[in-house]
Amino acid sequence: MLQFEKPPQDKALLDEAKTFTPRFDAHGLVTAVVVDARDNAVLMLAHMNAEALALTIETGFAHYFSRSRGNIWKKGETSGNLQRVTEVLADCDQDAVLLKVAMEGHDAACHTGRRSCFYRKVSVRDGAAVLDSIDDNRAFDPQAVYGKS
Amino acid sequence: MLQFEKPPQDKALLDEAKTFTPRFDAHGLVTAVVVDARDNAVLMLAHMNAEALALTIETGFAHYFSRSRGNIWKKGETSGNLQRVTEVLADCDQDAVLLKVAMEGHDAACHTGRRSCFYRKVSVRDGAAVLDSIDDNRAFDPQAVYGKS
Repeated sequence: MLQFEKPPQDKALLDEAKTFTPRFDAHGLVTAVVVDARDNAVLMLAHMNAEALALTIETGFAHYFSRSRGNIWKKGETSGNLQRVTEVLADCDQDAVLLKVAMEGHDAACHTGRRSCFYRKVSVRDGAAVLDSIDDNRAFDPQAVYGKS
Repeated sequence: MLQFEKPPQDKALLDEAKTFTPRFDAHGLVTAVVVDARDNAVLMLAHMNAEALALTIETGFAHYFSRSRGNIWKKGETSGNLQRVTEVLADCDQDAVLLKVAMEGHDAACHTGRRSCFYRKVSVRDGAAVLDSIDDNRAFDPQAVYGKS
């Protein structure tokens, strides 16, 4: 499996580095922003440990680390909504990656059945922060796919 | 200042909630993905505590929390590269927000002077993870703006 070198002590060296030395946090994770390769729409945010990152780069399919379950998961293994990775980009200080993906299956990334996890707009009404849906279209029925909503 | 209600104990209620109850992590932070409102290009990733999130929503300009410095910062206060927020979206489990922004100043989000922090592509060459630049255009000189590179 692909191994990553340790990041340099001096963070300033990360900006122009030609070697990818991901800066995993105290829990051993980097953040992944996932966008649709077709139109750059942000689909979801997830986390990766070194193994999930290596698997993603080596297999070309997105793998993440579930903080709640404490394990690696191949995105779409249950739902069929695999994410074929067309590009992996690293950010300046190398603690985040951007995945450009082509979705398979239902063409949806969110466990609710929607294309993107970011389907609600935040507004303030009567002094309270409220959410209004901007996407009520479900590409699949979560109950049927996962056996729970 | 805008106050956020506590999230419900049952995470399943977050998906379809009409109230925005951000799930701050153990450090009191949510993750913010920042995209250019013009074309959805991912510009940067940052973190927000409750105050930064409230300031962002109330003022319409992006405020973040610096984990390294331990304080709130208004993006662009030094560089002039303010981010006017046109939309705030919440994700399904409400631990991340997506900001659509119009950049002011140099029209660049990264401290290196580039438009986006995600300016390098990850590849594998000779068994090692390497980075290749996809954007060498600097909208400003970091040395001149920040007094350091």
